[in-house]
Amino acid sequence: MSEFIEVVYGVKSPAAEVESRAESILLEQAVELPRKALTDPFVLSNIVGEVRSIERRGEGDYRVTIAHPAITAAENPAQLLNVFFGNTSLQPDVLLEDLRIPASLLEKFRGPRFGIEGLRQATHVSHGPLTSTALKPMGLSVEKLADICRTFALAGVDLIKDDHGLADHAFSPFRERVKACVTAVRQAAEKTGRETLYVPNLIGTPTEVLEQLRFAQEAGVGGVMISPMLLGLPLLNEIVRGELRVPLLAHPSFGGALRIAPEALLGRLFRWFGADAVIYPNHGGRFSYSLKTCETLASRLRDPNGGGKTVLPVPAGGIKVERLGEILAFYGEDVMLLIGGSLYEARESLEERTREFVTKARGL
Amino acid sequence: MSEFIEVVYGVKSPAAEVESRAESILLEQAVELPRKALTDPFVLSNIVGEVRSIERRGEGDYRVTIAHPAITAAENPAQLLNVFFGNTSLQPDVLLEDLRIPASLLEKFRGPRFGIEGLRQATHVSHGPLTSTALKPMGLSVEKLADICRTFALAGVDLIKDDHGLADHAFSPFRERVKACVTAVRQAAEKTGRETLYVPNLIGTPTEVLEQLRFAQEAGVGGVMISPMLLGLPLLNEIVRGELRVPLLAHPSFGGALRIAPEALLGRLFRWFGADAVIYPNHGGRFSYSLKTCETLASRLRDPNGGGKTVLPVPAGGIKVERLGEILAFYGEDVMLLIGGSLYEARESLEERTREFVTKARGL
Repeated sequence: MSEFIEVVYGVKSPAAEVESRAESILLEQAVELPRKALTDPFVLSNIVGEVRSIERRGEGDYRVTIAHPAITAAENPAQLLNVFFGNTSLQPDVLLEDLRIPASLLEKFRGPRFGIEGLRQATHVSHGPLTSTALKPMGLSVEKLADICRTFALAGVDLIKDDHGLADHAFSPFRERVKACVTAVRQAAEKTGRETLYVPNLIGTPTEVLEQLRFAQEAGVGGVMISPMLLGLPLLNEIVRGELRVPLLAHPSFGGALRIAPEALLGRLFRWFGADAVIYPNHGGRFSYSLKTCETLASRLRDPNGGGKTVLPVPAGGIKVERLGEILAFYGEDVMLLIGGSLYEARESLEERTREFVTKARGL
Repeated sequence: MSEFIEVVYGVKSPAAEVESRAESILLEQAVELPRKALTDPFVLSNIVGEVRSIERRGEGDYRVTIAHPAITAAENPAQLLNVFFGNTSLQPDVLLEDLRIPASLLEKFRGPRFGIEGLRQATHVSHGPLTSTALKPMGLSVEKLADICRTFALAGVDLIKDDHGLADHAFSPFRERVKACVTAVRQAAEKTGRETLYVPNLIGTPTEVLEQLRFAQEAGVGGVMISPMLLGLPLLNEIVRGELRVPLLAHPSFGGALRIAPEALLGRLFRWFGADAVIYPNHGGRFSYSLKTCETLASRLRDPNGGGKTVLPVPAGGIKVERLGEILAFYGEDVMLLIGGSLYEARESLEERTREFVTKARGL
């Protein structure tokens, strides 16, 4: 018997369309193909899950529960997010409201290493609330931050975390700060008799963060903090499954990232950070980017003054071969056309259909 | 003369409050302290930026441009995101609309390695649109995927990317798939005279992705694809600044992550992936989580049946020492109280104020 991942979505939809909307979310999150393009028996019986329930909560407001076979997640945190909410996160009528995973998958992810019990042991606070504060502001020297750390520790706070904005700045290098703050809480402990946990903020690219983790643990920190949405949720799990030996605090910074306009996120940050081609949901497909957003995205990616080499826009998401002329008239020639479902629907005529796409694109 | 990062925010605010709202965004994104708690001259002159302009666009709708000194970003992609939109992303009245960085910072990030020109060289398509399609669905065996790949290549498509849902699944392991698909496009090239680029999807924890990148490049792929929002934006930049030798496609999967309810993101995923304590914006502070959301978050993190060890809730964001009683009555004792600004405002009386916090928390 297969195990399932369950996802509860809030879906805004007219009553007459909610069943087909639920079916399309189910397909989008796993096979990303229309059902009529599915022929493989393994895919049909082991990959495509099912819509478990659709409950009406109000006018045009539904709670839709979808089950995906657990094997779709490949026992991997990044792929789990993909199955829960990859492409569907781009559709504004859907909110991810709740999640369930089988115990076998949780075992792979491992979950908290210390939890409440471990934090109480580490702080020697067996009951009552734990107290904590933040080391800041960004811009202070290592010496000044260590002084504040000592002050907080002398006052008896249980845990001192770096502000989430303290990085490896030239004016307060990570390694020096960690050493100075560990020393400060130890000095305070000589007076108070109890060591406050100092918890540095780990921030950077994944490899930098893993190096910071190693350094901090060797230096004797009481815990570490990361912002999973900033660094990437899969890195949280890699740390936890790997070298973590102290309690880990998660900070919500960047947790509201959707409220970055796509023009800024895909049009600027993806380019600055080095993508050569950027795929995005084209206007008029399964997703919601407006014509204006698509125009701005393409123009920012291709702007010779947009920063570094120009980038190829890749409009996608439900493009039909029939719409190629219109799309090329809109984007001009510096574009990559990405068509999937519309080809797969040809089934055994896949090669002819693809050839038609290529020929048409070349000829326009 | 300092260089600046500029951020353009859309801000919903009554006219009478927009100036103080802009000031609070400026402080939130760098020092995360009230101005009266700032004393250090270096911080005041080199870290705290300025509100450059506030333009009214309509009733209660403003375009606010804020400049942060470029040194706040520590030449680091994760910290850049933090400065642009770390905590402010959690405030629903603010949309990040546009970004500017100085050329010196872009040089550090490096930007696209290949861009449009490099992709045209790699595909031998000097003008006109490039054509591409996706290898899918998830669930097909390596052999079947390679067959489809060969078919597409024979039809003359320029680039074939994995579906973003193809991971390192047991039924289609990454390494076997890459080898088989590279072979398939090469076999097709013997007939067509031109090699289609095969672009596998890299997905997993950062270390796994870096290993996949190395393997794929050695196997002779034509490019690689990642979903930066799924894997973490800083990993994109680490790859680009590091070992990348082929064009990189960025996929928008998980790009609408805000539409995950915090109860699901912080209450479940952060726990499953292993955080021991989860910081979140408490009701009634600077952020917007409702009382109900805070209650649900705390209950999910502490639920003995929520998966693995129980997790310590850390409500934060503008908590005053005066509100401790109320907060403890709400959360009970399994909680970590995190207070920052309210302590720093005491300035030279930091230790006494912190002691008061600790004593009060212990006594309640």
